[in-house]
Order: sequence, then structure tokens, then C-alpha cells
Amino acid sequence: MNDMTETPTVTTPNAAPDVGFHDYVAIARLHADYAQAVDSGDWDLWPEFFVEDCLYKLIPRENHERGFPLATLFFESKGMLKDRVYGIRETLFHDPYYQRHVVGAPLIRSATPDRFEVEANYAVFRTKLSQASTVFNVGRYIDTIVRTPDGLRFASRLCVYDSEMIPNSIIYPI
Amino acid sequence: MNDMTETPTVTTPNAAPDVGFHDYVAIARLHADYAQAVDSGDWDLWPEFFVEDCLYKLIPRENHERGFPLATLFFESKGMLKDRVYGIRETLFHDPYYQRHVVGAPLIRSATPDRFEVEANYAVFRTKLSQASTVFNVGRYIDTIVRTPDGLRFASRLCVYDSEMIPNSIIYPI
Amino acid sequence: MNDMTETPTVTTPNAAPDVGFHDYVAIARLHADYAQAVDSGDWDLWPEFFVEDCLYKLIPRENHERGFPLATLFFESKGMLKDRVYGIRETLFHDPYYQRHVVGAPLIRSATPDRFEVEANYAVFRTKLSQASTVFNVGRYIDTIVRTPDGLRFASRLCVYDSEMIPNSIIYPI
Repeated sequence: MNDMTETPTVTTPNAAPDVGFHDYVAIARLHADYAQAVDSGDWDLWPEFFVEDCLYKLIPRENHERGFPLATLFFESKGMLKDRVYGIRETLFHDPYYQRHVVGAPLIRSATPDRFEVEANYAVFRTKLSQASTVFNVGRYIDTIVRTPDGLRFASRLCVYDSEMIPNSIIYPI
Repeated sequence: MNDMTETPTVTTPNAAPDVGFHDYVAIARLHADYAQAVDSGDWDLWPEFFVEDCLYKLIPRENHERGFPLATLFFESKGMLKDRVYGIRETLFHDPYYQRHVVGAPLIRSATPDRFEVEANYAVFRTKLSQASTVFNVGRYIDTIVRTPDGLRFASRLCVYDSEMIPNSIIYPI
Repeated sequence: MNDMTETPTVTTPNAAPDVGFHDYVAIARLHADYAQAVDSGDWDLWPEFFVEDCLYKLIPRENHERGFPLATLFFESKGMLKDRVYGIRETLFHDPYYQRHVVGAPLIRSATPDRFEVEANYAVFRTKLSQASTVFNVGRYIDTIVRTPDGLRFASRLCVYDSEMIPNSIIYPI
């Protein structure tokens, strides 16, 4: 947890970078499309949202904010994401589940013609066989999105989640 | 649940259809306006979001994905929606509740000048009298939205929800 | 709870006020930026989203809809918000928590060149030390947003939440 007695830096709400309609919608769409893909159960969709030389990290907020490197998942290339998909598909799961992402509006922190720094809050709900849906993982995406000939892709996606418990049961991509 | 061992089709992220600012905002607004209406308790608002010859279906994901027709709710006209509203209003409920929808950004799958295929993830929270708010129903809207002289309306709204339990307690529109 | 047997007024979905791309994105950004600020633990950020002569109210839906004045929090100036921040920071909390806001799309009810009436549904999740994330507070923002030389700010933000239980444990801004 944050030390609530530390003196924070006063900051005014950030000025918005100049982003046109087409790029704004494309960024919102990338987020929504990703959510649909990782909720679909069609895991092969997942690596295609990333460039070849990418970073995907799932890390507790505590570690992220204190600069501790320990992450729950850490992949440094599209090939590693594909390996992960292979692992998901080939492993026998005795406890499969559905997941459902609801993602807030993108907060574009900086924009150059071909590169966007974007954040968004997310909540993931899990539904196990014959059970009610529950809150599974909530946190914040911190993204570097780049323009490619095929459209926008993630150069980096950090999933910084709030619960300090290491959820060993996170099998599918957040 | 999906059979996790089946071989999925590799698909790249979908190309975005060309939608102008006015239509994009109108679609996002339709989603937000609908959420406000069904959370307001003013049930007569609900049928007005649909065209006369419409489809509204609330169906478990399991059934939807396997092509099983069994739905929790299935209405094929605005008149049937109005009948449902009558039923909601005239029935004595011993266990009323508030509901609250939080809906993700619209993912526009296809667009013609007067017709849009749109999807969005949703989470509905329920609050019973003197109880805490809980996760009630999460899933995915699959919509056909059409342009009418009165603005955008749903020609079809499928609510595909993740929990396999049939929630008999779903009284109000999702 | 609403009296479900009362006769509601039939209303068609509201016509959208005319808002350009720049303002639409600025409003969505204000919501997302606010969510990031109050989730960050950097409480000094919070008052900067408001004009000097502002209103911030956290009120149960029951009281709001019946016109009862009793609110959980009620602040009438930026100075009072800063006092609240001082109180948050100086108080010893034995039970700190993270919070995470996921906010739906803004529903712009009316727009003049310098003033917007906007609503949005929200869900706030809470994560206590070494515990799972849970649903904490869900409801509806009802905002008056005004244009200032520094960008859009809240003249008024009402947080109307669904649970009728008075959550004494709401320490941080919703």
C-alpha cells in the first residue's frame, strides 16, 4: 500500500495531447477489440495485437509503484506470447472459466504521429462452471501503442493490478 | 464452457469500418442512454430504444456459442417488450433491487449508411435493500443498430451472459 | 427503493445535444483523468478537477431520488475539498485500501458553449491489503462541467450511489 503520510506532488490535470478523431477512435477500438479477443477463448487472437518486439507484463501495483521487478507474467516478444498460447491450449485445466473485461475510456498521455502512451482502468470478471460471476482482477493498463502498416498495435502493455495476492489461477491473458 | 483443446482459427485484429464522428458518438450515446434508462426504474423508457419489428434476447453464452436456441428471455416485437414492462410493473415483487450497468466502448463490426453491427462488454451490478452492491450479470451485447427518423434504435439486441446458471431472479431488462 | 407501482412518464430516448469532437473527447478525458487521480493515492490531485466555487456531493440514490438532503459527503468549495485531503492525509488509517474506478461513456444531457450537463455510470472496486478485489461502490455521476482557461473542470459533481447502507468506510474520494 502507499504510505498515505508522504507528501505528494501537487499536479494539475494533464493537458490533453492533440489527437484527431481517427486516431482517438482507433485507440478506443484497439482496447475494445483486445477485450473481445481475450474474452473469446480464441487464444490465438491475443499475440496478434502486439508487434514482434513487444513487452507484456502482468504485475501487482505494489511492485510496480515501488519499482520491484517481480511480475506475475513477463513476456518480451510476440514469440513468447505465442508460446504462452500454446501452453494455455495444451495444458489440461480442471477448472476452466470464462472471463469478461470491462475497460474504461482511454487516457492518452502523449502522442506523436506514430506512437501513443495510453492508460485505461479495467475490471475483469470470472465465471466458473455453474457458478456466479465474480470480480477477478482489477487494475490499470499502461500501454505504448504504435502505428504499423496493419493498424495500431501494442509495443508494450503493462497490466498493473490492485490485489497484492499473487493469483496463481490467472491462466488466460488479462 | 469452450472446449479449450479445439483448434481456433487464427484471425488478425479486425479492420475498423469507416464511421464518422457523428455516428460514432451517436452509437456510444445509444449505449449510455440505454444503460441509464434500464437503471432508472422507469421501465417505460426501455421499449423506446427499439424499432417496432425488433429482437431482444437474453441468452447464456454457452447456449449462444453452441447454437442452442434456449434463451432466458426472447421477445420479437416492441409490443412484446411493452407487455414485459406491464408484467414488471404489475407484479408484486417482494425483493426489489437497483441495477447499475457499466458498459465498455462500442466495437463497431460493420457499418453501412443506415445499419451498424456493434458489440460491447457489460457488467451489471445489483443492490438489494440494505445490502451491499454485488456483481449480478456480466456479458456481451451483440447489437444491430439502425438509423430511423427519430435517431438510432436497436433492430436487435442480444445480451449474451457468462454465467451458466439460469438467473430466475432477472426481473428488469439487462 | 422506487415504488414500482407508480406510473412513470413515457419518454423517448433523449436527442443528443450538438457537441464537437474536441469537446466530446475533452469530457471523456476529464472523466478518465479524474478516475486515474482518485485511484492514484495522490490525493492532492483531486481538488484540482474543480472550480473554486464548486459542489461535491456523495449521496445515496434513495435520498437523491426522494429529495432528502442527507448526504454522506457534502463540500461546497475547493477549499473544503482541500481540507478533506488534509484530513485523509493526516488521519491514521488502520485499514488502508486501493480503489479502482471503471466509468461508462459520458451521456451529455445538455451543452452550451461553456457548460455541459453530463452523466456517467461508475463502479469502484476496493482492494485491501492481502485481500481480493471487491465491488465497493456503484452509482451514477451527475456533473456540471464548465470551460475554464485551464481546460474543463467540474462546477458540480454528484456521486449518487446505489447501496442504501451508509458506508462509513468511504475514506477516499469517489
